[in-house]
Amino acid sequence: MYTLAFDPARPLDLVLLGRAAIDFNPVDYFQTLVESTTFKKYLGGSPANIAVGLSRLGKKCGFFCRVSDDRFGEYVVSEFEREGVDTSRVRPCANGEKLGLTFTEILSRDESSILMYRKNIADLALEPGDIDEAYIASAKALLISGTSLAQSPSREAALKAVALAQKTATPIIFDIDYRPYNWVSADEIALYYARVAQAADVILGSREEYDLTEALLDLPGSDKATSAYWQGKNAKIVVIKHGKKGSTAWVGDESYSIKPFPVQALKSFGGGDGYASAFLYGLLEGWPLMDCLELGSASASLLVGAHGCSCFMPTLDEVRKYIAKCKAEYGEMVARF
Amino acid sequence: MYTLAFDPARPLDLVLLGRAAIDFNPVDYFQTLVESTTFKKYLGGSPANIAVGLSRLGKKCGFFCRVSDDRFGEYVVSEFEREGVDTSRVRPCANGEKLGLTFTEILSRDESSILMYRKNIADLALEPGDIDEAYIASAKALLISGTSLAQSPSREAALKAVALAQKTATPIIFDIDYRPYNWVSADEIALYYARVAQAADVILGSREEYDLTEALLDLPGSDKATSAYWQGKNAKIVVIKHGKKGSTAWVGDESYSIKPFPVQALKSFGGGDGYASAFLYGLLEGWPLMDCLELGSASASLLVGAHGCSCFMPTLDEVRKYIAKCKAEYGEMVARF
Amino acid sequence: MYTLAFDPARPLDLVLLGRAAIDFNPVDYFQTLVESTTFKKYLGGSPANIAVGLSRLGKKCGFFCRVSDDRFGEYVVSEFEREGVDTSRVRPCANGEKLGLTFTEILSRDESSILMYRKNIADLALEPGDIDEAYIASAKALLISGTSLAQSPSREAALKAVALAQKTATPIIFDIDYRPYNWVSADEIALYYARVAQAADVILGSREEYDLTEALLDLPGSDKATSAYWQGKNAKIVVIKHGKKGSTAWVGDESYSIKPFPVQALKSFGGGDGYASAFLYGLLEGWPLMDCLELGSASASLLVGAHGCSCFMPTLDEVRKYIAKCKAEYGEMVARF
Amino acid sequence: MYTLAFDPARPLDLVLLGRAAIDFNPVDYFQTLVESTTFKKYLGGSPANIAVGLSRLGKKCGFFCRVSDDRFGEYVVSEFEREGVDTSRVRPCANGEKLGLTFTEILSRDESSILMYRKNIADLALEPGDIDEAYIASAKALLISGTSLAQSPSREAALKAVALAQKTATPIIFDIDYRPYNWVSADEIALYYARVAQAADVILGSREEYDLTEALLDLPGSDKATSAYWQGKNAKIVVIKHGKKGSTAWVGDESYSIKPFPVQALKSFGGGDGYASAFLYGLLEGWPLMDCLELGSASASLLVGAHGCSCFMPTLDEVRKYIAKCKAEYGEMVARF
Repeated sequence: MYTLAFDPARPLDLVLLGRAAIDFNPVDYFQTLVESTTFKKYLGGSPANIAVGLSRLGKKCGFFCRVSDDRFGEYVVSEFEREGVDTSRVRPCANGEKLGLTFTEILSRDESSILMYRKNIADLALEPGDIDEAYIASAKALLISGTSLAQSPSREAALKAVALAQKTATPIIFDIDYRPYNWVSADEIALYYARVAQAADVILGSREEYDLTEALLDLPGSDKATSAYWQGKNAKIVVIKHGKKGSTAWVGDESYSIKPFPVQALKSFGGGDGYASAFLYGLLEGWPLMDCLELGSASASLLVGAHGCSCFMPTLDEVRKYIAKCKAEYGEMVARF
Repeated sequence: MYTLAFDPARPLDLVLLGRAAIDFNPVDYFQTLVESTTFKKYLGGSPANIAVGLSRLGKKCGFFCRVSDDRFGEYVVSEFEREGVDTSRVRPCANGEKLGLTFTEILSRDESSILMYRKNIADLALEPGDIDEAYIASAKALLISGTSLAQSPSREAALKAVALAQKTATPIIFDIDYRPYNWVSADEIALYYARVAQAADVILGSREEYDLTEALLDLPGSDKATSAYWQGKNAKIVVIKHGKKGSTAWVGDESYSIKPFPVQALKSFGGGDGYASAFLYGLLEGWPLMDCLELGSASASLLVGAHGCSCFMPTLDEVRKYIAKCKAEYGEMVARF
Repeated sequence: MYTLAFDPARPLDLVLLGRAAIDFNPVDYFQTLVESTTFKKYLGGSPANIAVGLSRLGKKCGFFCRVSDDRFGEYVVSEFEREGVDTSRVRPCANGEKLGLTFTEILSRDESSILMYRKNIADLALEPGDIDEAYIASAKALLISGTSLAQSPSREAALKAVALAQKTATPIIFDIDYRPYNWVSADEIALYYARVAQAADVILGSREEYDLTEALLDLPGSDKATSAYWQGKNAKIVVIKHGKKGSTAWVGDESYSIKPFPVQALKSFGGGDGYASAFLYGLLEGWPLMDCLELGSASASLLVGAHGCSCFMPTLDEVRKYIAKCKAEYGEMVARF
Repeated sequence: MYTLAFDPARPLDLVLLGRAAIDFNPVDYFQTLVESTTFKKYLGGSPANIAVGLSRLGKKCGFFCRVSDDRFGEYVVSEFEREGVDTSRVRPCANGEKLGLTFTEILSRDESSILMYRKNIADLALEPGDIDEAYIASAKALLISGTSLAQSPSREAALKAVALAQKTATPIIFDIDYRPYNWVSADEIALYYARVAQAADVILGSREEYDLTEALLDLPGSDKATSAYWQGKNAKIVVIKHGKKGSTAWVGDESYSIKPFPVQALKSFGGGDGYASAFLYGLLEGWPLMDCLELGSASASLLVGAHGCSCFMPTLDEVRKYIAKCKAEYGEMVARF
């Protein structure tokens, strides 16, 4: 069994560090962005989605980020407040940086792409000076979203948060969350991902994301080797995702696998954030790993069927009802191997 | 009477230089952008709107601009083509510049504001190398939108277009079109506005815009002095706008004034582009100035009552019917002093 | 005869705008910079040299420029003060910009090249806000060095100085002074050179520099056409230099030519600044053009034989003695055609 | 005793990563840079000096760096070649970056300061792509100069070299070498210094440099705690310098201290590079630590009495004669406590 000690005396369940953004999803989907005429606005950005997801499941989250000093920045703060996420470390930018925008093109249930506005962007303006030890020490765990490492000064803010988490004995969760935007080379990706991975207690990533992380190491690229290597550093749990084939959590030499729940997807994204928030909920509750994975997989399925991300995050009751419904229909072992 | 010689042998009626952008206007208006949830996407950017307006009135326009190398850039090209604007000089950007975005906040019929994405922006990536003499020499006139002067290399592209228009005896129309974004100082505004104004045959601007243009000159800031000064350079017609009080066109010592048509405005912007396109239509047709002004004023009124700009530009028949309707209701002299 | 009205009531003879820099000239010349081991430090930068030259000839100069906020900036100020140049408009940079450095490689009497440090450079940090009308109005003339136009914000500072010179009826001298560094395209060069040239009362340049200036105009590239075109704008005197073949000043249809004085050159640069300062001295004194040219040519010859530039600028007595000596040796018409 | 395994089969004794630059030292010193008129040009930059020092002592060094694509870059390559440093990884910059320049102001034997040109600089243009595993694997050790961490992409090049040294079992020497230029915050310094320090086998730094390195750690700032902490990571030897009071090398709980040799200093810099090269020579030879320290201290004393750095690096015979001379004059225990 895994051993992760969350200090029950700490008031926040999780502090996340990374981007909050706005998703504009077309109402008239299944065509290109050239043709789409009408868009819905949603709070987005992977760690923002995870924070909202965990809040809806009943956990208290805080968030280190910078937002634009305009209505869109106000929108992020207002959404976080509505969802119960602490916004004391969500600060406006000083130099006119803008909130990241994501325009989604949903061509079919399998094909979607995104058009991103991510230059001169608010979230990557997070500074080391924004990161304070007291806030990290008030949380049971710290989650670093890998995209925050793509550029200075956000990169150094994230590395400082890692250093202060180590100093304050705060478990570190590393969600690799690779996005090609903003990175300048594969070497940079490998250097900074590996830096945070070797300090992390829990790592979440796809096979491709681990390959990027391990590019300067002498590893064969197998799940077993990946799991062993990072556990040889500081990791207690190594989760490796394989898309529609499911995902596996490694603890020592043992592995626990889960499959996706049966679902009619509307779009091919959003599942990862549902997965992460529900899986981390289970960990914070001290659940057995298989139960954490099952909750994660069910939440993922709910998300890929929804039009947006953060505002479709389910409550615990909703995921549980969904699991029960699936089990009634497909058998107790739905999702489990 | 004014004397503007448009060469009838030239195939294009007008080449415009400046920005094309996307407007996102909220469907759920009369609230802030924090609350608005649903947005309509429209082709925008003042000179793009004017080009569409003139096309709908039956004139053939060309356009010098750069657009993003993505779906939004494709959208601009596809809208221009649908409207009959020549896109042979509309080119994709090479360095990831993005199309400008304008999110409109319509708080009431009188109060609206905009949230702009205009950093690292496609239209200001227009380069001197994009401007060719042959295309300018193929047009009856060249319109420079003042916003193109805000930043290099677009600034030099615009100045080169002015130089080539002078070389090819192409009349120059300067639409001052002041936007605070991207400019770094009042001195820069004054220097570059005055540079183009002194080469222009027709100048269109508000009193405030002329004040910016004349900041380094020894002028009293009166309409009479403004008109005299620029006619002392190269101007044949100097149009000075005074918002809801109407506008005046000066030719020599004579002035011609028009008032707005009676209208229930939905928003406080968009009128200027309707005005410019219809006024220029009249000029290109060789109409008497008062008729040009009347058509401009009527088109402006139609636009402020519409949800967007470019795609609500009227045909000649529509403006004429609107004028006739207003005259039937309010008298022949509606809008005229 | 030329007509240039210098207001005798104005206390400063000339205000110059442009760069001050440091030249490091090798003591162990006639080898490459790889081998040279020892360097002499001199005040440099073409307009700084001209200011020192005019001062030594007895004229009072002022200078608009920015220098580095370090010992090298102090050095410029201290040299200017030692030479009697007014330094009230010589200001330190605020953002760590450094003074331009020029390392000279003198391979032979004919071949020299330079290695320049001109990125993030102090002189191009001159801002429009540095330029005040009162100072320009206190000078008999304004000299714009073309290199100041290469980059913002120095470019706009120069254009503002031109605008304020026009406003205060201050004659403008344009020394084209082309250097390839910092410029980004031939179109930019043509646009900004032509802008200042059309406002200038006196223009100084080589044939190549006029070709750059006229690239967007419809001119044949002959001296006669060049002279006529710019006199058709605002120029009273157009000086065109042809290197070792001498130079010609045009006034109306008349031209006045001078040859170089016989000289054993040490290096192939520096002559132009000696020429400009002595020629302008003559103009400010109201001399006949041929006498201005003779003084200029003699000063040029003195400079190409010296190890540095500014600190080898001659006094009036020294140039006159040199001219007398040459005439004694080579005949009264030495240098004159 | 320390245990550092250098693979005798590897052809290069040391590969260094960091800056090569040019020092201009005034011949007419003991005055400010305003007054100094004549300068000598020397190869400079701390790791370049160390490479030359080690070469003169008989070791074969390689060097990862970028130099300017001009005569000064050629000069660096030619100096390295003259000294026997391998230049196969010394590459010219592609984007006009210039070699760093250091102008030294020697006010007195105790007071000196420097004026640096370090913007848009060649050495910080070193890229991760410049670093190859084979070259590192061909060297007995890798030295990282801390200044290379100040800015991207040199920062990532250094981190990649560290990663590849770990992969190829190449001992890492970290010379903290703090220079305030180019760094943007104390947090950045702490993050990147600590990153390399925890991978290093040998660390060289002053007390102040260790304080910067440990700013985000929970350490008391004593030499004993510093030494213990880094040995708890990967360090075998921790050298802490205390300026004129001498320096101490820690191995386990044991410490070895050395004092400066008696010397009449000409300037207050340069000693560190003499120290490092001679100390590392001893290590590479497998000498007892006290002998390494003695050689380092003697070389340091020779350097502070010289006009430049790299070209005054002593041979083994010269240091030994100097030590012998000092011992004859001051006793066998000169420099030893």
